[in-house]
Amino acid sequence: MTDQLYVVLLGTGAAAPSLSRGLPALAIVREGKIILCDCAEGTQLKLLQAGLSPAKVQTICISHLHGDHIFGLPGFLTSQQLFGRTASLTIYGPPGLADFVDMVATISKYELGYPLDVVELEPDVTSEFKVQEFQVTSKNLRHSSPCLGYRFHESNKPGKFDEVKADALGIPFGPQRGQLQSGVVITVAGKTIYPCDVMAPPIAGRIITYCTDTRPCTAALELARQSDLLIHDSTFSDAYADRAAPTFHSTSREAAEIAAGAQAKKLILWHLSIRVHGEEELNLLTQAQQLFPNTVLPHDLDEIYLRRGAGE
Amino acid sequence: MTDQLYVVLLGTGAAAPSLSRGLPALAIVREGKIILCDCAEGTQLKLLQAGLSPAKVQTICISHLHGDHIFGLPGFLTSQQLFGRTASLTIYGPPGLADFVDMVATISKYELGYPLDVVELEPDVTSEFKVQEFQVTSKNLRHSSPCLGYRFHESNKPGKFDEVKADALGIPFGPQRGQLQSGVVITVAGKTIYPCDVMAPPIAGRIITYCTDTRPCTAALELARQSDLLIHDSTFSDAYADRAAPTFHSTSREAAEIAAGAQAKKLILWHLSIRVHGEEELNLLTQAQQLFPNTVLPHDLDEIYLRRGAGE
Repeated sequence: MTDQLYVVLLGTGAAAPSLSRGLPALAIVREGKIILCDCAEGTQLKLLQAGLSPAKVQTICISHLHGDHIFGLPGFLTSQQLFGRTASLTIYGPPGLADFVDMVATISKYELGYPLDVVELEPDVTSEFKVQEFQVTSKNLRHSSPCLGYRFHESNKPGKFDEVKADALGIPFGPQRGQLQSGVVITVAGKTIYPCDVMAPPIAGRIITYCTDTRPCTAALELARQSDLLIHDSTFSDAYADRAAPTFHSTSREAAEIAAGAQAKKLILWHLSIRVHGEEELNLLTQAQQLFPNTVLPHDLDEIYLRRGAGE
Repeated sequence: MTDQLYVVLLGTGAAAPSLSRGLPALAIVREGKIILCDCAEGTQLKLLQAGLSPAKVQTICISHLHGDHIFGLPGFLTSQQLFGRTASLTIYGPPGLADFVDMVATISKYELGYPLDVVELEPDVTSEFKVQEFQVTSKNLRHSSPCLGYRFHESNKPGKFDEVKADALGIPFGPQRGQLQSGVVITVAGKTIYPCDVMAPPIAGRIITYCTDTRPCTAALELARQSDLLIHDSTFSDAYADRAAPTFHSTSREAAEIAAGAQAKKLILWHLSIRVHGEEELNLLTQAQQLFPNTVLPHDLDEIYLRRGAGE
């Protein structure tokens, strides 16, 4: 199916793996290509369990260098080598990421046979870059180490070409119709015709925002603005709210405040503490839903599909 | 149950994890304490899946520094920190191991709150050391990087004290009987009495030998001598035998030759290539069993119990 965009929540836990939740990693899947957000220990296996080929990962966006977000990277890189990858791979993340990749490679003596590009993003400024059909924005969140939030904004899709209107305006079949569809103004029999005269309005691209490991902050709010999907740190329920500030994490209620403030369409509670099971799952969810009803408490390998222009 | 000794085959695969096999790690469990052999990506989760507490791991023996044997170590160490471990942990392995642990800690900025002792073993000599009730011997195997095999030889258990014989010899109840049980020679009414006069012969300790990632070699043969359980590299079946030498691995037939030559009691085929599933499992197993019938082709989380003095 074309134009399909979905997210697979590979690992929804935090800090240490449990029998029910793996460590943080998330796959954004669009037209068979995968962007990975974080690469915790176990991520390469989670991809297989999700039916996703690790070879389709073209880009990895690392939030920060705490072990529970990066310790799967060495294994991912070496397995790709083993399976004969030739396609390039780009990894974005905070300063220190290139050293981590280099040092691990030095010790375990692996050499990659595919192009690997490690791009360190300056945490103190807003970065903008393009990944496939997405305009990506990253900003430093508020954690105990530099931690990047990422906003993935898909390109708009041109609206439908209206054949009836084009016929009525006397536009001949041929290249001029193509020009209008490409956004070019044309002239027919001395009359100026604008693309909007024959095209439906563009269909907005979808927005996914990934903000793990953070206190509620302005950067998260800005990144999350009008997102179709906001994945936000919700390590604790209200019962453990006193632990959120000293550990630089958020409660689910605080995540919901960001989602509401940013007018996001859907919130995924993320980076769930090992305590979050049984009734505590319900606590986390209901506390968020009081402020932001369209909140999901996820489980590993859940898939979330996003429709264009379809706020739920 | 006292005197119980068993091995849990946490990860029976090689190089990259698959849906059916995890990467190499093996737990030796004796009286609630665990020795871990290798610590691949995913090992901490495998321990949980096996119902074993990672906190019970007191010793880790690393074979070599290839990623598929050590990339679970950083996560294991940091998770133990998170769960408030205070007990010390000792890790044995080849030179470079301490650098690996230090460098990963530097990048991801973790500080361990429990005593960690990294002991680098010189690969070119035979090392001998004591771990719990085991006398451990390590030797360099034959792989593309220094790779240690480990032999774990449990202490002998004293034979049963024979009350009837003791009575007949006129040994009074009290400390002298205890002395005999501790191996001390005593004198009763001017007559010398040796422990063997009243004690059944000692019951031999069990021997487990772990030789992963190696060509067949003398070191493996020596380590495996009279083992109750030999875990030996069997990456390939005969069909891929031409790949064994250049990659410094063994076929299952070669593993069986070592087991037979060393007069081991049981062989576990280990470090199984990702190709080993379906009929290829049967090939691997039957090719080994032609030479060494008591061979097991394992699956992840299999448990192997060892009886004292019970050759199967």
